[in-house]
Amino acid sequence: MTTVFTKIIQGEIPCAKVYEDDLVFAFMDAGQVNPGHVLVVTKTPYETLMDADEESAAAMMRAANRIAKAVQRAFEPEGITILQANKPAGWQTVPHLHLHVLPRYSNDGVDLTWPRKEPGMDKLREYAAKIELT
Amino acid sequence: MTTVFTKIIQGEIPCAKVYEDDLVFAFMDAGQVNPGHVLVVTKTPYETLMDADEESAAAMMRAANRIAKAVQRAFEPEGITILQANKPAGWQTVPHLHLHVLPRYSNDGVDLTWPRKEPGMDKLREYAAKIELT
Repeated sequence: MTTVFTKIIQGEIPCAKVYEDDLVFAFMDAGQVNPGHVLVVTKTPYETLMDADEESAAAMMRAANRIAKAVQRAFEPEGITILQANKPAGWQTVPHLHLHVLPRYSNDGVDLTWPRKEPGMDKLREYAAKIELT
Repeated sequence: MTTVFTKIIQGEIPCAKVYEDDLVFAFMDAGQVNPGHVLVVTKTPYETLMDADEESAAAMMRAANRIAKAVQRAFEPEGITILQANKPAGWQTVPHLHLHVLPRYSNDGVDLTWPRKEPGMDKLREYAAKIELT
């Protein structure tokens, strides 16, 4: 499937490029939540992180680490939030694996509702036992 | 500095462990936003992603990739959100580099306000030119 990100990577749609290597391509998000907001996209058009191989996943965060350092130097934000959304229920809008590097400021209008519950250690261990890595 | 995550990694505070390798340690977040909510923590107590080296950053996402696949199999969520918060302005609460693997559902009460502005290509290129990777 050809996504808008594939067209950007292939140069069919213009972008403000930030970084490229064998596995990922990074550019300014056209919808800047704060100035300096970068997207890191896998060159392979995986839909989600769950579809990706480890190398592409690792390359996204390796790039995000270098970009976050460079964004910190360039824009001196008060914080940086990394967001990687999978499937519409997980806030994904473009079905091509990507990660946001977002400079942050107090009271910047970016808000998160994060309803924590504390189920206790027995329940946590029950959950952990279900998660079997391959 | 010793953080609560260092104490968890060292076994001084109990946790429901999910995964461990040379660089990262993963366990169930005591504050489960949805069942199956996992934290991936770097063994080196970096404060933020901007303080970390590339290998620890890559290892976090390599682990997140494997954990996300396992969480998908175990809990079959509608989506998964990866969140990695740096500094209080970026939503960080524990000053020890970590990443959330959060199973997601429509109307699960986890909400994001994400105010996008479209500054146009000239401004995007101006921003990109400031971001100099080393």
